[in-house]
Amino acid sequence: MTDVPSPPVAARRRPGRSSGSARPGRSTARYRALKHRFPPTPVVSEDELEAIHDASLTILEEIGMDFVHDEARQILKRAGADVRADSARVRFDSDLVLQAIKTCPSEFTLHARNPERNVRIGGKHLVFAQVASPPNCSDLQGGRRAGNQRDFRNLVRLAQRFDIVHAVGGYPVEPVDLHASIRHLDCLSDIAKLTDKPFHAYSLGQARNRDGLEIVRIARGITHQQLEAEPSLFSIINSSSPLRLDTPMLQGIIEMSSRNQAIMLTPFTLAGAMAPVTIAGALAQQNAEALAGIAFTQIVRPGAPVVYGGFTSNVDMKSGAPAFGTPEYMKAVLAGGQLCRKYGIPYRSSNACAANTVDAQAAYESVFSLWALLQGGANFVLHAAGWMEGGLTSSFEKFILDVDLLQMVAELLTPLDVSPAGLGLDAIREVGPGGHYFGTAHTLERFETAFYAPIISDWRNFETWSEAGSPTAMQKANAVWQKELAEYERPPMDAAIEEELDAFVARRKQEGGAPTDF
Amino acid sequence: MTDVPSPPVAARRRPGRSSGSARPGRSTARYRALKHRFPPTPVVSEDELEAIHDASLTILEEIGMDFVHDEARQILKRAGADVRADSARVRFDSDLVLQAIKTCPSEFTLHARNPERNVRIGGKHLVFAQVASPPNCSDLQGGRRAGNQRDFRNLVRLAQRFDIVHAVGGYPVEPVDLHASIRHLDCLSDIAKLTDKPFHAYSLGQARNRDGLEIVRIARGITHQQLEAEPSLFSIINSSSPLRLDTPMLQGIIEMSSRNQAIMLTPFTLAGAMAPVTIAGALAQQNAEALAGIAFTQIVRPGAPVVYGGFTSNVDMKSGAPAFGTPEYMKAVLAGGQLCRKYGIPYRSSNACAANTVDAQAAYESVFSLWALLQGGANFVLHAAGWMEGGLTSSFEKFILDVDLLQMVAELLTPLDVSPAGLGLDAIREVGPGGHYFGTAHTLERFETAFYAPIISDWRNFETWSEAGSPTAMQKANAVWQKELAEYERPPMDAAIEEELDAFVARRKQEGGAPTDF
Repeated sequence: MTDVPSPPVAARRRPGRSSGSARPGRSTARYRALKHRFPPTPVVSEDELEAIHDASLTILEEIGMDFVHDEARQILKRAGADVRADSARVRFDSDLVLQAIKTCPSEFTLHARNPERNVRIGGKHLVFAQVASPPNCSDLQGGRRAGNQRDFRNLVRLAQRFDIVHAVGGYPVEPVDLHASIRHLDCLSDIAKLTDKPFHAYSLGQARNRDGLEIVRIARGITHQQLEAEPSLFSIINSSSPLRLDTPMLQGIIEMSSRNQAIMLTPFTLAGAMAPVTIAGALAQQNAEALAGIAFTQIVRPGAPVVYGGFTSNVDMKSGAPAFGTPEYMKAVLAGGQLCRKYGIPYRSSNACAANTVDAQAAYESVFSLWALLQGGANFVLHAAGWMEGGLTSSFEKFILDVDLLQMVAELLTPLDVSPAGLGLDAIREVGPGGHYFGTAHTLERFETAFYAPIISDWRNFETWSEAGSPTAMQKANAVWQKELAEYERPPMDAAIEEELDAFVARRKQEGGAPTDF
Repeated sequence: MTDVPSPPVAARRRPGRSSGSARPGRSTARYRALKHRFPPTPVVSEDELEAIHDASLTILEEIGMDFVHDEARQILKRAGADVRADSARVRFDSDLVLQAIKTCPSEFTLHARNPERNVRIGGKHLVFAQVASPPNCSDLQGGRRAGNQRDFRNLVRLAQRFDIVHAVGGYPVEPVDLHASIRHLDCLSDIAKLTDKPFHAYSLGQARNRDGLEIVRIARGITHQQLEAEPSLFSIINSSSPLRLDTPMLQGIIEMSSRNQAIMLTPFTLAGAMAPVTIAGALAQQNAEALAGIAFTQIVRPGAPVVYGGFTSNVDMKSGAPAFGTPEYMKAVLAGGQLCRKYGIPYRSSNACAANTVDAQAAYESVFSLWALLQGGANFVLHAAGWMEGGLTSSFEKFILDVDLLQMVAELLTPLDVSPAGLGLDAIREVGPGGHYFGTAHTLERFETAFYAPIISDWRNFETWSEAGSPTAMQKANAVWQKELAEYERPPMDAAIEEELDAFVARRKQEGGAPTDF
C-alpha cells in the first residue's frame, strides 16, 4: 500500500470545543509579538547581492532620480547631492547614500494608544498589518462595490477582532463617499477609536500628514514632545517608478521624518512595465529608489525610523496586468530581504495576490507570498489580510482566510517541545506496538491545545461535508466575518480623549479640511 | 498612497502566445531534473535533533517493534537483533541500527524505460511523483466516484503529459473494477505502456512484487542482471504505526531490496492517533519505525537503495480525522529533513491536503506542504499531483492545479540572472525617470520567456473576468485536463517489447494472478 489513511477515527467528542475563531482554551494574545525563528533563505550569492547593490549605486550616480519638490532638492543639495537648476534630477555620490543610511535604526517601536498593542519593527520581529487602499470591496452576499464608509468601518472593526492583525495599514478600503478634503479626518479618527492598534497616515499633502500626527497624538493622550520621542504613526512612501519621487511623497517624508515618525519607502517596481523585465534589473532599480528615499529620510533627520519596502513583481506580458505571488515575486522578496540585512534596515513586504475571487488561486498566490516573506525575513507585512485583485479589491472573506493563514505562519514559528514530556517516551511505552494514543494520559493532558485549530479548514469527511451542502472555504469565511463583526466591541477610550478627538475633527472640517489639489 | 497599482497597462498583444499548458517558446523538459538551491531550514536545534534521535533509539532498544513475518525475524536474529520465540517483537541494539544504515546509498538513480526519464534520488535532487492509491476519484463534471480502470488510465495518461511529474507513484486511483488477483498485472502493464517514466509496485505479497519486477524488466528490455544493477522499480513500505511492520511489507522489503530495487520506508505517524499527540513524540516514533525498516533493508542487502519517508501530521482532535498542510505537518516535514541529512539517507515527503474540493483550502494546504518539503530538502515527493481529502480522492482538477504549483516551485529554483545583461543598466539608462519598459529592446528580447506563464492563474481584470463568467481556478483546471487528455500520445514502445509484456500479463492471468488472501 502507499499511505492509504485509515478511515477517520471517531474519537469521542470532547467537551469545551467551540467553532469560534479564537482557539478554545488558548488565548490568541500570543499572536501579538511574533519573531522569526528560521535563518533567512538567500536566493542570490553574496557576489550577486553586491552586483545588485553596485548597480543601484551606479543608477543613483549616473542616471539619478527625479525629486519633484523644491524644498526636498534644496535639502539634498545642502547635503552634497548633485542638484542642478531647472531640473528635478538629483544624482547621488555613492558615499553620500551609504553614509546617510548608516543612521537608520535597525529596529524601533511603533506605539499604539494601547501600549499592549505597540509593535517592534526590525530585527527578528514580524508584524502584520491589514490590507490598505483598495478602491473596491466585496463580500459573498453584497458582491463587488466601490469603497464606502460603512464597509471601511466594518473592515476596521474586523482588524480589531484578531490579535494576529497587529496594525491598521491604511484605509482597508477607500471610502469614496467621503469628500477627499475631509476623508482623512473621518477615517483616521475612526481608526483611532475603533481600534487600539498602531496605524498609518497617507502622504497626500502636508495638511493630511499634520492632521494624522495630531489625531494620533490626541488618541494617545500625549504631548508633542512625547510623540516626537515615540514613533506612533507610519506612512508608506511609494516612488513613482522608474526613478521619481513626487511632491506629496517628499512632503510626507519631510513632515514625518522631521518629527521622528516612521516612513516605509516602497518602490513599486513591476518588472516588464515600470522596471526592467528581468528580476535582477527590477531589484537594482528598486534598490536605487529605496536607498535614495531612505537616505533622504536620514538627511531630513538622522535616526528617524524608516523601513525598506520591497514590492517588485512581474506583469502578465500578455496584458500588462500586475501579477503577484509568482515565482518571480518570491525571488524578489527573498533578494529584498538580503539587501535589507546587508544595510541593517527593517524590511517591509506584502501578502499579495492577483485573484478575482477567493478560490484556489487567491490561496496559492497568498501562501507563496507568505512563504517568500517569511523565508526572506520580512519585518513588516502590509496587506497581510484582505488583499485581492492585485490591490483593487478588499475582500471580507479574503480577510478571514488571510487571518487563518497568518495564524498558521505564527504557529509554524512556535518551537517544538522537545523536552522529555514532549518526546513522550512514557506514552510510547504505554501504548506499544499496534495500539493507539486517543485515550492515553499524555494525549488527554494536551489534546485541547496540541494543534492549531483553523478558522477555515473543513476536515469533515466527504459524506458529512456533502450533507452540509459542500461548503467551500469562501462560504466558511463568509460566516466567520459576519459572526466576528456581530461580536465586535469598541476598545475603551478615555471620554476626555474622545471629546478632544471629535473637537479636533470638527474644527478641521470647519476649516475646510485639506486641499484637494494633489 | 499605499501601493495602489496603476490600472493594467494595455500592452500590445504579442504574437505567438497560446493558452496551452506548455510554455510557449520554452520547453518544459527543463522541469525534468530539478535540484535544490536553498539551504534547508532547520526547525529544531542540533541538540533537539539529537534528543529525537536518541528517543527513537531508546524506543527500538527498550520497546522494540513487531515484525510480523517469520523469515524477517530470522534474518534480524542472524544479524544480532533481540528476537525471542513466540513473539513478533524485535528489539534493536542502537549500534546494530546505526551500523546497518551506514550502507544506505546517499543517492541513486531510478531507471525508466526511457533513459531521459531516469530520476536521481537523494543529494540535492528533487523528484515529483503523481498521487497514489486513493480509492475514489473526481472531476467537476463526473463528481466523486469509486476508482475504475478508465479513470486510472486517464490519470496515468495525464502523468505522462507533464515533465514536472517525474514518476508514477502507484495507482493514481485504485481501479476497484479490476479483480484484486489481476489488478496489478493490468495496472502495471498499463503504466509501463502509457508512460515512459519510472514507477512503483505495491508490496501486497511476494507474487505481486515479482510480477512488478518482471513487468519493469520486460518494459526496459533488459536482463535480470541489468535490472539488479539498475534500480528500476520502487515500493512504498508503510509501517503500521505504532511500531509494527506487517507481513506483506516485510515480504516487499525482502523481494525488492534483495534485488537492489528501491524501498521508501514511510511510517504514517498521525500525532494524537497512531503516534503521541506531540510532534516531537510523533517524530521520535516515526524515526524509530523508519530506522528499523531501513536497517532491515540493509541487513537484507547492504547498499540496497532506500528512502526515508516522513508522513507525520496531526489529527483533528474533534473528529480524529487526519489533517495535512498544517503548521504541525510543516514542522514535522522540516524536522524529518534534518534527520535524513544527519543519516545521509534520501528523504521522501508528500504534497498533502485534506480539502474536499479544489478551493482555497486545497491550495493553501498544498502550498504549505510544498513550502515545508522544499525548505526541508525533500528528495522525492509522492502524491505531488492530484491528492485530495487526505488521500481518499484523486482529483483531475487538483492534478492540474498541482502541476501548476510544482512548476512554480521549479521556477523558484531557477537562478536569477545577475549578469550585466540581467541587471539591465542600459535599459534603465534608456528609459530613465518617468518612462516605462514595454517597448525597450531589453524587454522585447526577453518578454516571451522572462516570466513563468501559469496554467491556472487568471490575471484578467475583474470586468473581463466577470464577462467571461467569473471562472474559478477549479473551472480553469477542468478545461485544461480535458485538453491535455485529448492531446495525449502514447510514448513509443518497441513492438517486440509490447508483445512480450502482453504475453507475460496473459500468462500470469491464466495462472490466476496473485493470491488475494492478503
